[in-house]
Amino acid sequence: MTHTRQDYLDLDAKDPLAAQRALFDVPEGLVYLDGNSLGAMPKATAARVAHVLTREWGRDLIKSWNTAGWMDLPRKIGDKIARLIGANAGEVIVADSTSINLFKVLAAALRLNPTRKVILSERDNFPTDLYMAQGLSELLGQGHTLEFAEADAVHNAISQETAVVMLTHVNYRTGRMHDMLSITAKAHAMGALVIWDLAHSAGAVPVDVNDAGADFAIGCGYKYLNGGPGAPAFVFVAERYLAEFVQPLTGWLGHAQPFAFDWKYAPAPGIERAICGTPPVLSLAALECGVDTLLSADMSAIRQKSLALTDAFIALVEANCPELNLITPREHDLRGSQAAFTHPEGYAIMQALISRGVIGDFRAPDILRFGFTPLYTRFADVYDAAEALRDVMQSRAWDKPQFRQKNKVT
Amino acid sequence: MTHTRQDYLDLDAKDPLAAQRALFDVPEGLVYLDGNSLGAMPKATAARVAHVLTREWGRDLIKSWNTAGWMDLPRKIGDKIARLIGANAGEVIVADSTSINLFKVLAAALRLNPTRKVILSERDNFPTDLYMAQGLSELLGQGHTLEFAEADAVHNAISQETAVVMLTHVNYRTGRMHDMLSITAKAHAMGALVIWDLAHSAGAVPVDVNDAGADFAIGCGYKYLNGGPGAPAFVFVAERYLAEFVQPLTGWLGHAQPFAFDWKYAPAPGIERAICGTPPVLSLAALECGVDTLLSADMSAIRQKSLALTDAFIALVEANCPELNLITPREHDLRGSQAAFTHPEGYAIMQALISRGVIGDFRAPDILRFGFTPLYTRFADVYDAAEALRDVMQSRAWDKPQFRQKNKVT
Repeated sequence: MTHTRQDYLDLDAKDPLAAQRALFDVPEGLVYLDGNSLGAMPKATAARVAHVLTREWGRDLIKSWNTAGWMDLPRKIGDKIARLIGANAGEVIVADSTSINLFKVLAAALRLNPTRKVILSERDNFPTDLYMAQGLSELLGQGHTLEFAEADAVHNAISQETAVVMLTHVNYRTGRMHDMLSITAKAHAMGALVIWDLAHSAGAVPVDVNDAGADFAIGCGYKYLNGGPGAPAFVFVAERYLAEFVQPLTGWLGHAQPFAFDWKYAPAPGIERAICGTPPVLSLAALECGVDTLLSADMSAIRQKSLALTDAFIALVEANCPELNLITPREHDLRGSQAAFTHPEGYAIMQALISRGVIGDFRAPDILRFGFTPLYTRFADVYDAAEALRDVMQSRAWDKPQFRQKNKVT
Repeated sequence: MTHTRQDYLDLDAKDPLAAQRALFDVPEGLVYLDGNSLGAMPKATAARVAHVLTREWGRDLIKSWNTAGWMDLPRKIGDKIARLIGANAGEVIVADSTSINLFKVLAAALRLNPTRKVILSERDNFPTDLYMAQGLSELLGQGHTLEFAEADAVHNAISQETAVVMLTHVNYRTGRMHDMLSITAKAHAMGALVIWDLAHSAGAVPVDVNDAGADFAIGCGYKYLNGGPGAPAFVFVAERYLAEFVQPLTGWLGHAQPFAFDWKYAPAPGIERAICGTPPVLSLAALECGVDTLLSADMSAIRQKSLALTDAFIALVEANCPELNLITPREHDLRGSQAAFTHPEGYAIMQALISRGVIGDFRAPDILRFGFTPLYTRFADVYDAAEALRDVMQSRAWDKPQFRQKNKVT
């Protein structure tokens, strides 16, 4: 390849999403390819949170539960996220964490399929999903087992023993994307229910949970939704299950009449029954700003640019760094919005790259992971990141004690 | 009584906590007696959250999990809260909501006492605690029952059938405070475990969970801890249980090695096993500012002023408003940091009072509730609130359609 940096600047000049970058505060000089771990901060967020603090909380205090609409935020933002994942208004609500929401929907799903005991997932699923399933199974003590299939063998592993298929749509390490439609169809044909974890999908790739017939889904607010560190998560329950959706974390704000203060629990009629405790207002305000950045753009344009960015990065890295082994699928239909490579010295390589202002992340044991967020990642960033990686590899810049010492938690 | 407003101003002039009010943004002209529902905003909070947003998230992005100490916040703030409730460092952590934390400790406690099936509480406990116990019991399907005793009959109701005594230390409606020491002792003598909900205690009254021998406790961040609307909650596990504390919400950040990304859950060795998902950083930063306001003052001084404030308010209201019926105990040992009265028209009376700039709240069916937060409530506020209430009652100002119409959610 003989492309120059100018070629990538030309792509940026023609990019219909180029203007969206102005919605974010991305530090100058940084190539940030870790929006799949923590999305960048929208410019609107600081002012919105400051308003919530000084005006809504500081001045209006308790009244703001009514006058500032605090109590409505979980549903309001849920309805916005619904538009990103092909759900209807009233099928999505924001609450708690991804882990907690998985517990809710998995408990509900197992209850809806009581004669079956197998939860089918991938060993390479994001661990919290597996951990929560283990915690729930042990608590239930009803002999549920967690079984694993390889990513490309999930279809065949779904059987008439399967109670619930629990998958993350886009794998957090490889970026491999499942076919939501065909897996959901197979599960239903076998009498199983399906839970989709959309942590690496919502805001990243086109998702249509209702077109796929998905039963339940959960997702994360702080990756592609740009909600801020530890932002609240969301949960989707298909409308056909809402009336019979029984989840065990029956907190007061999931009650049909929270302010009646009755001693006996009675679930709210709709998706509000998936709420547990009091909504985290500051975090919700920040999350809404993040979700709004996604709604400002067309998802098909986001997807088109995402594939172009990852295509370009993969091509450059493979041309320049033959020692790195691509583990993200080349096929567009199988790829989320990231590109990942393995190398035995992956940790040190990533640290050396970060020291050059290119931020990706490392995932044990040997994965270099690069997330591409079309709203604020430029084609020139792709070029600059690939050039920095080439330099790190060719100069063996990673082979220094300060890069090889593992002292980071993320 | 012939006290004048000047008498209360004189009390403020001699108040050793008077200077603490400057730590808060309390709107001029407002008498805020609802800090037991939503604490006022500390002045430090807006700047701290702005720093987290623009510098830590906006500029340093993912690195801040390490460099800004985000990952340490749950434990760091937990250790601070420990000082407010008589716990040791390493026994308290901040995570999730009060409701979710109750689920964790109740599940753990029932597991530690497996042959018994009775959860003993009060029908008048805050509903979310009862709801979570109902949700857990139903999920377990092991025949656990939720039984109720009147507040003054709890001692006698604890039996050799009791698995867990689950009580809120200070009742959210009446302000009645349980004797933590004697109830815990009685429970242990009968072979039961005890969970204390400190939602209306932490930062409000002296608490010493270890002196009382408490097994587990939970509490709220947004009331007397001033952490902001929907702030994260805390959980206490006595050190003697940490090694055998098994809670079912086994999310990735409660794992012994979260960043090993192993597929199998293994709990962290200490209180970190009570964590579930990713810490909510914005909310944690705000909560830390709130907790710091409490640590700036001596709890015995806070208690002394709290009793003086509630004594004064009760005396004025009883002298001026004979139609209102005090339901908060007169005995100091039985009183938290609030005063509550009943009246059949309580809702309308509270709305009329709020329209005069005195903020308390109403709790169904007929309770007017006033919280007293010694760090920012003045003796003059007590006088002004009582005068406003006298005026509302004597003029029947509450008897208007705009006050009687129930359209508020809190």
